[in-house]
Parts: sequence; structure tokens; C-alpha cells
Amino acid sequence: MDRIPILKMGPYLLVTIQVDLYDRLALTLENDLINMVSKTGARGVLIDISAVSIVDSFMGRILGNIASMSRIMDAETVVVGMQPAVAITLVELGLTLQGVYTALDVEKGMELLQTKIGIIEDPEDEDEEVPDDDTV
Amino acid sequence: MDRIPILKMGPYLLVTIQVDLYDRLALTLENDLINMVSKTGARGVLIDISAVSIVDSFMGRILGNIASMSRIMDAETVVVGMQPAVAITLVELGLTLQGVYTALDVEKGMELLQTKIGIIEDPEDEDEEVPDDDTV
Repeated sequence: MDRIPILKMGPYLLVTIQVDLYDRLALTLENDLINMVSKTGARGVLIDISAVSIVDSFMGRILGNIASMSRIMDAETVVVGMQPAVAITLVELGLTLQGVYTALDVEKGMELLQTKIGIIEDPEDEDEEVPDDDTV
Repeated sequence: MDRIPILKMGPYLLVTIQVDLYDRLALTLENDLINMVSKTGARGVLIDISAVSIVDSFMGRILGNIASMSRIMDAETVVVGMQPAVAITLVELGLTLQGVYTALDVEKGMELLQTKIGIIEDPEDEDEEVPDDDTV
């Protein structure tokens, strides 16, 4: 496979990772995603990893990179659908996906993104503190 | 890969096909999709094939099967993101995906599904004829 498809849905981009992210594919995905964020003006990126049974340090770094790059481009990233075994392995490996938001499934991820984007777009409407502590 | 992930988004199910649908994987997908339609009460199924570069008669039949099964379960199926080359090959092979709705991308597919579901849910609101001629 050459590249992972990126689906545009309203203000969000959706990526479903179904295969192992080897080096070139991961770099292509980073590149494609950032270009899509720039081209479409997307405000959120959802990455579904429900089909991924192993997340190693490389993939953890790729997810972190995508989140950081998207944030610079004014888009938030949420990783959704993580299998329980993956979460266990990640913590055992000492990888806590710093700076990456997570949610249980796509719907909850979209709700989270709506909250994030709402806070960013209308900071004067609500005087609540920005919840930085839900970064998992 | 064991199975293709099915994402629930509101009343729709989204499937992104990124790999070749060999026999067992295709049967698993059919099975999983019908179970998800039953479990979630989904009204629409979106199948994204933007990463698929070859659709042969087997895959054409699988798509047709999914559409027929979903329709029996009261859900419409839209295939989205077909590459131009795939459309050319399909017609050259004489496969016209009978009974399968198609749309250019996920957003247009969702709009199409909304129209279909709207027509089904509120048949008394509008007296227009049901457009059966946009089956591609």
C-alpha cells in the first residue's frame, strides 16, 4: 500500500490505521495529513487505531509528531479506538503518548474535538479555565 | 489483518477498505457489518474505497452483497471515493455495481444517505417520486 487514505468529514479529517506503519508509510501519512490540514482548513484530526494490535515506540513517536504538527497548523489530534491490550503495553513500555488526546471511539473523539475547537474559537464566551489535564 | 474496522458515526457506519479483500476477510467484513447494523440500528453504511486501485468481479460482488444485506436490514449502502481508473476498469469489465449507490467522497456520501433516509422516514412529507435512477 502506498498511502493511508485521509477522509474529510466537515471540519475534521479521519484516518483509519489498519496496517503496520513502517518508515516510509508513516512519513507519507505525516506529510499527507499536514497537507490536508493546510488545504482543507481542518480543525481536528481523528486517528482510529482500533485495528492496530501493537503500538511500539516508533508508532508512538509518529502519533506524537502528527499531534504536534497539527497543533502548529491550528488543528487538534485525537487518537481513538485503542485496544485495551495496546494501552497496557504502552504503559508497560513507559510510553504515555504525551501531548496526544485519546478517546474511546470516533463519536467520543468527535465530541472531544468539538469541545477543544469550541474553547479555541470562543474563548470570551466562557470564562472556564482551559482543561489541559485531559491530555493522556 | 484479521478484520476491517467498522466505525460508528451517529446513524452511519463507516468502513475504509485499504487492503485486498481476499475471501475470508470479505466474509468477515460482511458478517461484522450486518451484525453492527443490527446491534447499532445504523441507517446507512459508507464504504470508502479510495485506497483500492483494483476492483475485480469478486470485490464487486462483495460490495453488491453488502448493499443487499444492509437493505434487508433497513440500511442503505453508499460506496465512496472510487478512483477514476477503477471506474474505467469496472465498466470495461462489464461490472456496473448494480444496486450499489456511489458518491464522490465521504461528505457527498453522507448527504446522499441523508436524502435516502429522509425519503424513507418521511414518505408522507413530500410527494416526490422516489428517485431510483441514481443507482449507479
